[in-house]
Amino acid sequence: MVNTTRTTSLPENDKPAHRVAIVGASGYGGLQSIRLLKDHPYFKISYLVGEKSAKKKWNSLCPFLELPDDPTVNKFSADEIATSSDFAILSLPNGLASKLVPELLSKNIRVIDLSADYRYRLIDHWKQTYVKEAEEFKREDRELCLEATYGLSEWNPSKISKSRIVSCPGCFPTASLLPLLPFLKQGLVENDGLIIDAKTGTSGGGRTAKQSMLFAESSESINPYGVIGHRHTSEIEQQATEVAGKKIEVQFTPHLVPMVRGLLSTVYGRLRDPGLTAEDCRTVLETVYRNHPTISVLPVGTYPATKWVRNTNKAFLSVQVDSRTGRIILMSAIDNLIKGQAGQAVQNLNLMADLPQETGLPLTGFYP
Amino acid sequence: MVNTTRTTSLPENDKPAHRVAIVGASGYGGLQSIRLLKDHPYFKISYLVGEKSAKKKWNSLCPFLELPDDPTVNKFSADEIATSSDFAILSLPNGLASKLVPELLSKNIRVIDLSADYRYRLIDHWKQTYVKEAEEFKREDRELCLEATYGLSEWNPSKISKSRIVSCPGCFPTASLLPLLPFLKQGLVENDGLIIDAKTGTSGGGRTAKQSMLFAESSESINPYGVIGHRHTSEIEQQATEVAGKKIEVQFTPHLVPMVRGLLSTVYGRLRDPGLTAEDCRTVLETVYRNHPTISVLPVGTYPATKWVRNTNKAFLSVQVDSRTGRIILMSAIDNLIKGQAGQAVQNLNLMADLPQETGLPLTGFYP
Amino acid sequence: MVNTTRTTSLPENDKPAHRVAIVGASGYGGLQSIRLLKDHPYFKISYLVGEKSAKKKWNSLCPFLELPDDPTVNKFSADEIATSSDFAILSLPNGLASKLVPELLSKNIRVIDLSADYRYRLIDHWKQTYVKEAEEFKREDRELCLEATYGLSEWNPSKISKSRIVSCPGCFPTASLLPLLPFLKQGLVENDGLIIDAKTGTSGGGRTAKQSMLFAESSESINPYGVIGHRHTSEIEQQATEVAGKKIEVQFTPHLVPMVRGLLSTVYGRLRDPGLTAEDCRTVLETVYRNHPTISVLPVGTYPATKWVRNTNKAFLSVQVDSRTGRIILMSAIDNLIKGQAGQAVQNLNLMADLPQETGLPLTGFYP
Amino acid sequence: MVNTTRTTSLPENDKPAHRVAIVGASGYGGLQSIRLLKDHPYFKISYLVGEKSAKKKWNSLCPFLELPDDPTVNKFSADEIATSSDFAILSLPNGLASKLVPELLSKNIRVIDLSADYRYRLIDHWKQTYVKEAEEFKREDRELCLEATYGLSEWNPSKISKSRIVSCPGCFPTASLLPLLPFLKQGLVENDGLIIDAKTGTSGGGRTAKQSMLFAESSESINPYGVIGHRHTSEIEQQATEVAGKKIEVQFTPHLVPMVRGLLSTVYGRLRDPGLTAEDCRTVLETVYRNHPTISVLPVGTYPATKWVRNTNKAFLSVQVDSRTGRIILMSAIDNLIKGQAGQAVQNLNLMADLPQETGLPLTGFYP
Repeated sequence: MVNTTRTTSLPENDKPAHRVAIVGASGYGGLQSIRLLKDHPYFKISYLVGEKSAKKKWNSLCPFLELPDDPTVNKFSADEIATSSDFAILSLPNGLASKLVPELLSKNIRVIDLSADYRYRLIDHWKQTYVKEAEEFKREDRELCLEATYGLSEWNPSKISKSRIVSCPGCFPTASLLPLLPFLKQGLVENDGLIIDAKTGTSGGGRTAKQSMLFAESSESINPYGVIGHRHTSEIEQQATEVAGKKIEVQFTPHLVPMVRGLLSTVYGRLRDPGLTAEDCRTVLETVYRNHPTISVLPVGTYPATKWVRNTNKAFLSVQVDSRTGRIILMSAIDNLIKGQAGQAVQNLNLMADLPQETGLPLTGFYP
Repeated sequence: MVNTTRTTSLPENDKPAHRVAIVGASGYGGLQSIRLLKDHPYFKISYLVGEKSAKKKWNSLCPFLELPDDPTVNKFSADEIATSSDFAILSLPNGLASKLVPELLSKNIRVIDLSADYRYRLIDHWKQTYVKEAEEFKREDRELCLEATYGLSEWNPSKISKSRIVSCPGCFPTASLLPLLPFLKQGLVENDGLIIDAKTGTSGGGRTAKQSMLFAESSESINPYGVIGHRHTSEIEQQATEVAGKKIEVQFTPHLVPMVRGLLSTVYGRLRDPGLTAEDCRTVLETVYRNHPTISVLPVGTYPATKWVRNTNKAFLSVQVDSRTGRIILMSAIDNLIKGQAGQAVQNLNLMADLPQETGLPLTGFYP
Repeated sequence: MVNTTRTTSLPENDKPAHRVAIVGASGYGGLQSIRLLKDHPYFKISYLVGEKSAKKKWNSLCPFLELPDDPTVNKFSADEIATSSDFAILSLPNGLASKLVPELLSKNIRVIDLSADYRYRLIDHWKQTYVKEAEEFKREDRELCLEATYGLSEWNPSKISKSRIVSCPGCFPTASLLPLLPFLKQGLVENDGLIIDAKTGTSGGGRTAKQSMLFAESSESINPYGVIGHRHTSEIEQQATEVAGKKIEVQFTPHLVPMVRGLLSTVYGRLRDPGLTAEDCRTVLETVYRNHPTISVLPVGTYPATKWVRNTNKAFLSVQVDSRTGRIILMSAIDNLIKGQAGQAVQNLNLMADLPQETGLPLTGFYP
Repeated sequence: MVNTTRTTSLPENDKPAHRVAIVGASGYGGLQSIRLLKDHPYFKISYLVGEKSAKKKWNSLCPFLELPDDPTVNKFSADEIATSSDFAILSLPNGLASKLVPELLSKNIRVIDLSADYRYRLIDHWKQTYVKEAEEFKREDRELCLEATYGLSEWNPSKISKSRIVSCPGCFPTASLLPLLPFLKQGLVENDGLIIDAKTGTSGGGRTAKQSMLFAESSESINPYGVIGHRHTSEIEQQATEVAGKKIEVQFTPHLVPMVRGLLSTVYGRLRDPGLTAEDCRTVLETVYRNHPTISVLPVGTYPATKWVRNTNKAFLSVQVDSRTGRIILMSAIDNLIKGQAGQAVQNLNLMADLPQETGLPLTGFYP
């Protein structure tokens, strides 16, 4: 029986572990990163940074995620990270990473950033999209934006593996691009008219207390938000355009769903060749993702439930074709905090450390 | 302060109440009908029919919904319904109503049917859509299908008021048609390319035990189902085509959401006139629904949450326009068991009894 | 068919409505009060006070609870309340009411307070229990504490009806005292050894954003809190002691349950007379509550679910006896925001206005 | 960083894996067993038995839990299990295991039974408790009942390791006994007057569809059930009495909580020595469980949430003392399907295979 968390068999003491600092430890991105690295055979958590939790002992903060030797959470110090760590995962509010990354890089720390700060190649694109943050954080790191690699692991492995700075995709772009890119790359769907109707659990809103994310408010309810204006629209379009080789425009609408974790993206497009069947389209996906243990392409007629991928770094993809309307419908389920955030970060960390992408990552959940 | 449940002021003894039989009393459609009629100033529950609950006393079956005089549930008998009742609400599995309705009508009972049996004008259309049911229930009531009125209350009031048999729309068609029909009627959106991405709570699956509807299975998960093949597609298209005056084709995808009640429909279309603004489109809706207390058109930029309409017979509509893509996005939230089922049934009952549509119906929920 | 929300039949214009100010309008206590009074035949909402929501129009704040004439929320002003209102419902953080009540009373406003400020007869008892609040709010209103009536509606109706200031019980005391008091009054259970294991939905934590009440944190989890130290312990003991006529000590442990509304109290005691059966004990409850439409005593062997009382001002009580151990087990389910808070407030308001207790209050929920 | 799922370091090919048959594969007990063994370094799944799923391929039944080589589910055959397997885990309705176990043992299969069939030393005790099952399944295996080992792993390791047949405790007994036994063993709490108020998620009701376990019915609600009569009472008492060395009587009341997984037991007892502090009592627990990685004793004042143990084989224990009332309050949180069922089964399997108890078991969950 293959133990998916033991994909590598060398004992730790034969090969020194890579040391990873977690900046923003007690938010959901930080918590997931710590959880994944705690069990990872080739990385060890070397340094924790937190704002509100600074100077506190970790194990009393998080009795549900005890760490050996009960480390103390620190205030940010690039020097101390440089001394203690090889890598840093930054899980911070948008804008803030851009103030820390240059110094970390200058001290030879390789950085994985979970925010949107380095997702756009052009800094002006970021400034137009993250207007409020751009006002608070005056950025001049135009070159870094160009240098940073967009960390959609399955699509960029060799570039990621050599990068100093990897920017992890947003949760919605991850779920939406994975099923869509193969069709755009091969020119099988029309460029315009793409509609992405996405649904996310509330943990996507982060761990900071907000009235709208209270159990009492978000339970027993679904609602759209960020209609026409959501910032992941431009991130999706940038990547889709790059892969398609021509301008792609999408209509993206997220919805808030009463569940903790999970993100489902339902993508509607129009097939260029109306003769393509669902099985044909499934083959397109299967061909691209066959060797990726992080992606499962479901049989035609089986549709993914987010429960199936909860607590895993996996995406379940499914495709259906409506010959009556000429439409292709792509469905993609991920765990927004893992494959959509910290799990993809560790997947990229694996690439940067020349390990198989899926090393140490959970690929099977607990059902129900 | 207006008491919304007291829209009529005559005491009961001044005007004899209409007597209503509920057939299929202990399913969700039956339970909601009973709940609504229990508090209704002009109707009284005169007869309860149930299969599994036959011969049992109501109050021990449903301690949460006590009825005065604790009636006994009966096996179906058209004669007894004829003796006791003026109206019958049928809440039965698809196909079964078609076996009971002719006899009830022949005894001068006016019928409201919650199933799909009389939603199609052409019986063959029903047979093509409800294939399995058509095999089990051999139907010859072609004339009745033509006679039956589609009970989308706000769109058909005068016809409903005179009908012997009213067929209540499905929950998805109700939510989807309400915001869409005004635009189709005025020819403001293109005929093809309509996409309806809908999300429903689990009570839509009924009260009969199914593994997929267990809390353990459906909690903490969202998934699409019935992709390309869902039967409400043709029901929506029939009504949309009728109102538009030309063939309308929709791509309809329902999703199961971990909540009890609530249905959200997100409808994507393309504006014929790309110059129309969201405010313009809001005016279109407002103009049609201004005098309907059962419909609220939200301000542009406010998007409906299903929690807002829970336990009410109300639809909250919102419209947004993306000038970048030329798309219109319609959003509609209802309670699937009330406005999407039994509430609309009572609304139609009001019409049939020449009462204001909203008489006795809850229009304000309890938040949160 | 009795319409429970129409228990009184006089039209509004025959009898001038009592005018009620709501202080703390946009919290959950305020929202529920507004919701209940909006549909009440004898009260009207005359004035809204809010801190964060001051100067805003109500209907845009709460599209799910529209008010006629769309009132503006005001900053607190005793003078304006005196001009506009006969009663005031205060739904404020503990301690704050004690600063406002004296002035309101001096202007002849009759007050219903939802906080704990006037629940203790002795001000020192309050100070010992609400230590932090006692430090922030220096209180000298010893007399008012003695004057205030504890508003457990079914147990204090005549005193409540004559009071200037009624202090509404906490949600846990309400649910726990209702089944327990009849047995204490008749001396049927032992004075010591009472254990109250209570379970509440998250709305009991209020509408202010707290990390622990986020959907992501409180969903899919149950946990005890305030073990041995919860402040409702002394409130329960004060009332229990008063009714029993001797010192009663309870062990009270609340638990947080992943649901929005609902509170279940499971009370364990020891019968003095081990020969009493469950039916005997049910008769004790039935005798006390027979004429109270707000209380339902369930048959022996039927246990209450909080879903049955959601959105109602009702308590469902059940009793069981274990002859093997000599124990009595009392179970009580309420909606914490209605019967446990704003509904009981309106029940008291009814008493103060010489109306039947249950006037205008919802007594049947929507299931499921 | 210690990888908790790699507690043993020998590669699989150095040591032949033990082969385990799962009987009752597609229920929740079966699913969890398969999930745990799939990743286990020393066991492999050798045979699947199912009733409704017989003859189906596993991976299409459970796309969320793919197995290598996609095995077919079989009808029960002791011969085939004997050929293919060393151990069998039985996850079947009560009564049924007693018909299969004797044959399996006779073929030298060592058995772990998840049902209640072998939890009682005296077969008559079982017959009195499982009356309906005793009528359906005529049992004569008196000797086997005496032989079977009660599989509370931490309390019975050496006996379990040598057993042919291990009976896994119920979920409620597991959670309740773990914190209680140390105090009973040392005679620190009084023998009578113990109250266990327990709360479980809905997955405890199994995967078979039941109306009461539908999302629509059990969501947004908590209710007691099995009051005074629940069958786990006698199971708890048997073990408690055995460890205490004198008759122990408990009052046990379970409640159904709207969550999938998780079980919290709140136990109330009276201290013999009222001078004992919470810290003293914590030391009692800590001393017993210090070397058990499956048990965490929380600091005084930290109370366990079931979310902390979800998807793990861990119990979080906490103790509080109320010096005012002389009471001790024990709190215990487990995942009912893992530590309360299949995880404890694998823990016992580890013991039977002379592995460290926690081998291959998840001890850290994913939060939130």
